[in-house]
Amino acid sequence: MSQKPSIPKGTRDFGQQEMAERNYIFDTIKSVFRTFGYSQIDTPAMENLSTLLGKYGEEGDKLLFRILNSGDAFGKVDYDSFRGPDGAVNSVALSKEVCEKGLRYDLTVPFARYVVQHQNEISFPFKRFQIQPVWRADRPQKGRYREFYQCDVDVIGSRSQLNELELVQIVDRVFGLLDVNVLVKINNRKVLTGFAEICGFPDKVVDITVAIDKLDKIGLQAVEEEMKGKGLSDEAVAVIEQILKLSGTTSEKISAMRSLMNGASASGLVSQTGLKGLDELEELFGLIDAAGVSSPVEIDLSLARGLNYYTGAIFEVKAADFAIGSICGGGRYDNLTGIFGLPDMSGVGISFGADRIYDVLKGLGKFPSDLKSSTTLLFANMGAEETRYILPVASALRGCGVSVEVYPDQVKLKKQFDYADRKCIPFLSINGTDEAASGSVNIKNLVTGDQKAFSEEDVEGMVGFLSAGGTK
Amino acid sequence: MSQKPSIPKGTRDFGQQEMAERNYIFDTIKSVFRTFGYSQIDTPAMENLSTLLGKYGEEGDKLLFRILNSGDAFGKVDYDSFRGPDGAVNSVALSKEVCEKGLRYDLTVPFARYVVQHQNEISFPFKRFQIQPVWRADRPQKGRYREFYQCDVDVIGSRSQLNELELVQIVDRVFGLLDVNVLVKINNRKVLTGFAEICGFPDKVVDITVAIDKLDKIGLQAVEEEMKGKGLSDEAVAVIEQILKLSGTTSEKISAMRSLMNGASASGLVSQTGLKGLDELEELFGLIDAAGVSSPVEIDLSLARGLNYYTGAIFEVKAADFAIGSICGGGRYDNLTGIFGLPDMSGVGISFGADRIYDVLKGLGKFPSDLKSSTTLLFANMGAEETRYILPVASALRGCGVSVEVYPDQVKLKKQFDYADRKCIPFLSINGTDEAASGSVNIKNLVTGDQKAFSEEDVEGMVGFLSAGGTK
Repeated sequence: MSQKPSIPKGTRDFGQQEMAERNYIFDTIKSVFRTFGYSQIDTPAMENLSTLLGKYGEEGDKLLFRILNSGDAFGKVDYDSFRGPDGAVNSVALSKEVCEKGLRYDLTVPFARYVVQHQNEISFPFKRFQIQPVWRADRPQKGRYREFYQCDVDVIGSRSQLNELELVQIVDRVFGLLDVNVLVKINNRKVLTGFAEICGFPDKVVDITVAIDKLDKIGLQAVEEEMKGKGLSDEAVAVIEQILKLSGTTSEKISAMRSLMNGASASGLVSQTGLKGLDELEELFGLIDAAGVSSPVEIDLSLARGLNYYTGAIFEVKAADFAIGSICGGGRYDNLTGIFGLPDMSGVGISFGADRIYDVLKGLGKFPSDLKSSTTLLFANMGAEETRYILPVASALRGCGVSVEVYPDQVKLKKQFDYADRKCIPFLSINGTDEAASGSVNIKNLVTGDQKAFSEEDVEGMVGFLSAGGTK
Repeated sequence: MSQKPSIPKGTRDFGQQEMAERNYIFDTIKSVFRTFGYSQIDTPAMENLSTLLGKYGEEGDKLLFRILNSGDAFGKVDYDSFRGPDGAVNSVALSKEVCEKGLRYDLTVPFARYVVQHQNEISFPFKRFQIQPVWRADRPQKGRYREFYQCDVDVIGSRSQLNELELVQIVDRVFGLLDVNVLVKINNRKVLTGFAEICGFPDKVVDITVAIDKLDKIGLQAVEEEMKGKGLSDEAVAVIEQILKLSGTTSEKISAMRSLMNGASASGLVSQTGLKGLDELEELFGLIDAAGVSSPVEIDLSLARGLNYYTGAIFEVKAADFAIGSICGGGRYDNLTGIFGLPDMSGVGISFGADRIYDVLKGLGKFPSDLKSSTTLLFANMGAEETRYILPVASALRGCGVSVEVYPDQVKLKKQFDYADRKCIPFLSINGTDEAASGSVNIKNLVTGDQKAFSEEDVEGMVGFLSAGGTK
């Protein structure tokens, strides 16, 4: 078998440079999660299909990767019983017969399953984060993969707006550390319900939400057309237009909405749910003011994120200086674990989009330059004796946390230089018989050209010289 | 659906405590890999079955998890064409028809695939590590899982024994940092070939290797019976017995073997391959002496690790104070990438057994006690106004890297204390209206009982008090 090997479409190998950059993102995010007291859990890549099926809609079920039962998967299957009237086999039904497990599709359903399964071991409020790959049998295209990482942080078991605040603070701190300017947008699902109620179409909340979620993309007029197409009256659409056109500061918007929800709109209808949503928004913005957050945070009444399980706050984060859509999003859900028989567990969470954040940092040139090199110092290989001389020095430097390589083969210096160059190694040390005899170690900064000789015992001096800089 | 959810057998959830402990192991290992200039790559969980099949023997093929093709997997399959003469369906053949992809079974074959696929982007010698889960449809039992992590470090593209040395140094440093005493055992596959050659049965090297690999478990006599059962003569077995009984220091053993390989055994036969293996062992032990390694390193001539692709050094690491078998192993291979059409790429690598290392640290009580808590300080929730007062203090502390929680709900203090207790949070801060009015912050060390009041601006003082200790 000597055809060039390949990987399944929609999957990726991550080489050393890309891994260093991805780890930089994940490590930054993790360090922030930890300063807020969130800790990590891991769940298996495979879940029982009974856990996954029916949770993502009919389309989602089709996108699950199913794992063939091990052993004699087909031996006992009566294939003909899966034929329809036209003689064609029903793949969906047969796949249920021969596959009990599937690859996880997101981190949310496994998290809900985890909370229910381990409810007696967990201390609530339960603050967890999870960074793992998920798999979807989507058609691969630019920016859409069949295997990609999700990075979720959630707190479950508390209804306090302090949890919403914390997520905003986490976003603010993560992108501060990554040196990316972001805009945080917040809405509240109860306010969206309020829209539907005061415009007189309380059963159309999903249609209204879906329509106004497109405001950014298709504009106000098209949103209004869509709502009318869904059966809303002109008067109802006028009420919503009134809301969507609100301007001013956050507190001005909230107070204007409060009077609309209180009966001041054209319909004169009152929405208690909407008022409750405004209370939540007001409390959250008050907490954001009190805590102090660097990034701009604003109300976006068109924000819905298309997800019907949100019941309170809805979040979305956009990069201010790079057009790529949402890089982070989430919200509050009151019944995530209900699907597994544990009702009334309110939680709130957000998910960081690792691939998009990667693209933003790449696009803005925000990756630190020292990620390019995994090694600080290369000892050239000048022969067996000279190598034995420098081995203890290399060990001592590694003991101080310096990343050191000893070139393994005694080849031409040109080749060793090329190796240092390709790996962006900033320091090179060449020691021949003279150095070995005199007990000295030469180190050259390949970036600045600075060169210095040290006694072989002066490890501290070497560490100082190496840490003083030099990134190719 | 309200039956209690579960996960597939042989898989595991890792909760917060276990994750902290596992991360401690992985982070230690990674930090050591990095000081030796190895950097991380990731490959996809799914590989094409054409990459995986035939690489692990017939048994291994059966243990691969296969992924059902997405879309209409069965629609075009002529099921009857997979029936044997007895009418039963051939599951293996049919599964090849409906599954193109499988989950990776180890990290070695994906690494070989990676090197061949990316050979033009890679700088050789290529030093990589990889820490990812693998999946095997094995029968689950104690200590054997269907999903488990492997942690592999390899260098490919150099034949120098300095690479072998580095792996020994890495093992030494990792277990030094983990505070576990280990014994490093080394053998050489060429020496095993030499055994077969000087006993006159050069074609029996695999049988001999398989037999002596069991020396530890079944003893010398049973090993000799097995070799005789495989067709070795009494004289041949006597030659091998002579080798296996060698004692003394490493250099005494090497020099005794050198004369046996040079014709001094009962057979009088000479093995050039065996002598080459002894040269390699001698060079490696010389380098180990020169570099200085803390753990005991010894030759173990019965070490074979059952893997036929090793061609030079063979490594195995055992915990000195905990009976659990090998916790780390590997060796040199000269033709790993040959299966994918790139011959003559010599490499050497080892794999750390994360689950066993976890058991050793657990068994010996070697996990640091501060892994128990993810949070250093909990601010009690005394009401909305008091909470607003401490929010900026909490932010400032987090900015200094301290892990801080603000209890989200205003509930009885008893409940908040219990939360701190269950999460092993060592510091608690309770601030009421008095503290808010006077601008002070009270912090109590729940372990020692020490308590101190700070001015709200004195973040540095608080960080000092918090870092001065306290682990529950």
